[in-house]
Amino acid sequence: MERITSKTNQLVKDIKRLITSSKERAEKRLFVLEGARLCFDVLNSVYGVKYFLITDEAYARYSYEAAKLEEKSEKSFLITAELAEKLGETKNTQGVFAVCAMPEEKNLLGDKIIALDSVQDPANMGAIFRTAEALGIDGIVIYNCCDIYNPKTLRASMGGVLRLTPVKSADLVKTLEGLKASHKIYSTVPDSGAKPITELDFSDPCVCVIGNEANGVSDEVKAASDGLITIPMMGNAESLNASVAAAITMWEMMR
Amino acid sequence: MERITSKTNQLVKDIKRLITSSKERAEKRLFVLEGARLCFDVLNSVYGVKYFLITDEAYARYSYEAAKLEEKSEKSFLITAELAEKLGETKNTQGVFAVCAMPEEKNLLGDKIIALDSVQDPANMGAIFRTAEALGIDGIVIYNCCDIYNPKTLRASMGGVLRLTPVKSADLVKTLEGLKASHKIYSTVPDSGAKPITELDFSDPCVCVIGNEANGVSDEVKAASDGLITIPMMGNAESLNASVAAAITMWEMMR
Repeated sequence: MERITSKTNQLVKDIKRLITSSKERAEKRLFVLEGARLCFDVLNSVYGVKYFLITDEAYARYSYEAAKLEEKSEKSFLITAELAEKLGETKNTQGVFAVCAMPEEKNLLGDKIIALDSVQDPANMGAIFRTAEALGIDGIVIYNCCDIYNPKTLRASMGGVLRLTPVKSADLVKTLEGLKASHKIYSTVPDSGAKPITELDFSDPCVCVIGNEANGVSDEVKAASDGLITIPMMGNAESLNASVAAAITMWEMMR
Repeated sequence: MERITSKTNQLVKDIKRLITSSKERAEKRLFVLEGARLCFDVLNSVYGVKYFLITDEAYARYSYEAAKLEEKSEKSFLITAELAEKLGETKNTQGVFAVCAMPEEKNLLGDKIIALDSVQDPANMGAIFRTAEALGIDGIVIYNCCDIYNPKTLRASMGGVLRLTPVKSADLVKTLEGLKASHKIYSTVPDSGAKPITELDFSDPCVCVIGNEANGVSDEVKAASDGLITIPMMGNAESLNASVAAAITMWEMMR
């Protein structure tokens, strides 16, 4: 394994840019994982690893997984604790980083699908992926959302983003119209006039659209849906956090 | 309104200690709200306000609510932007602070109760209060949890902590035994051998116990319960975030 010690090393600079800039990630089609759990999750994924960087201390602690990831990576480097601090986004970084290639677009979606319309908060986004994976949702469509390869989203998803590769839509109405032959399309709304999710039969293939934190699902997408559904209010459901509202919707889909 | 400008003002120092130290809060029976929304929420609560501190800029922006809070407070002060920065826990503080008295212990709990056994993460704790309020849970028992007056918990609860005053238990087994005559007691566990929450009839008064993030509900509490319940696994429910698992449990209680 090569060793990087220089604070001005170009590769380290390039990786830091990948961590901080979604534009850079989109251009290079690369993203960065930080932390032992996320990095070693890649071992069981379809993701290709371009660079693997690890401190000596971390290599000693995680020697079994580190050796495996080293094997999977195109290139691996030992780095100093100082460089790891520089790269790290979290306090007390574990000193483990993997630069991965974004996957090819996916088409297969399955029966139970959620579509995210302009979800903007990275932590909500990650939480939705985590819950979707935990509850067994088959596929996720994303449209106009924050970057899923944002470090915060990757962390909050607990690696769910890596295992539940989403389909990126450039036009959500079109994507939903393509799914309409095989799936029922429901938009979730806070409106108490909509059909309560507890009264819906989710046994057939369906897509539930979850909207933006402040503005909900767009009018065009609502118009393209087979129906509007809502979480019935017992207390004050309008004040549910977006990721909790999404969790309850997915729970009802899979229940 | 008096004005505080000195960086070494003793009251400001005392308030900063209340913000950062749970020990200080417990001794003084006081806690601090930051931000316009949380502070002005107090106007519709039973909480007494000891000190209200606000910058000139914030007073100009929120003059209507600020005047009302000034009236409710024992003492009010105009502070400089610099002092607000010093006190603030969030980036770009709004410059609005209220020092409130902790309420007297509450006893009335209602029909649908959750009991939190050693929940430790302040953000999870706040999220559980927010969801409990949104879904209409009647009461919360807390035992050996992180301080609910922690700034992170107050923020994540969106003021839910203020409106859904919990009952603090010094001995959860005893508290539950006291509730047993009137309520069914269920402990939530990740164990797939337990009864699925989807098969339970929650129409009678009940208490659901939610456990610590890492260790779950304690053995003594499980033994004191009428039954163990679980979120049935469709995907990998064990990897649900604690606040999401609590949300699904509360949703089923209220559904």
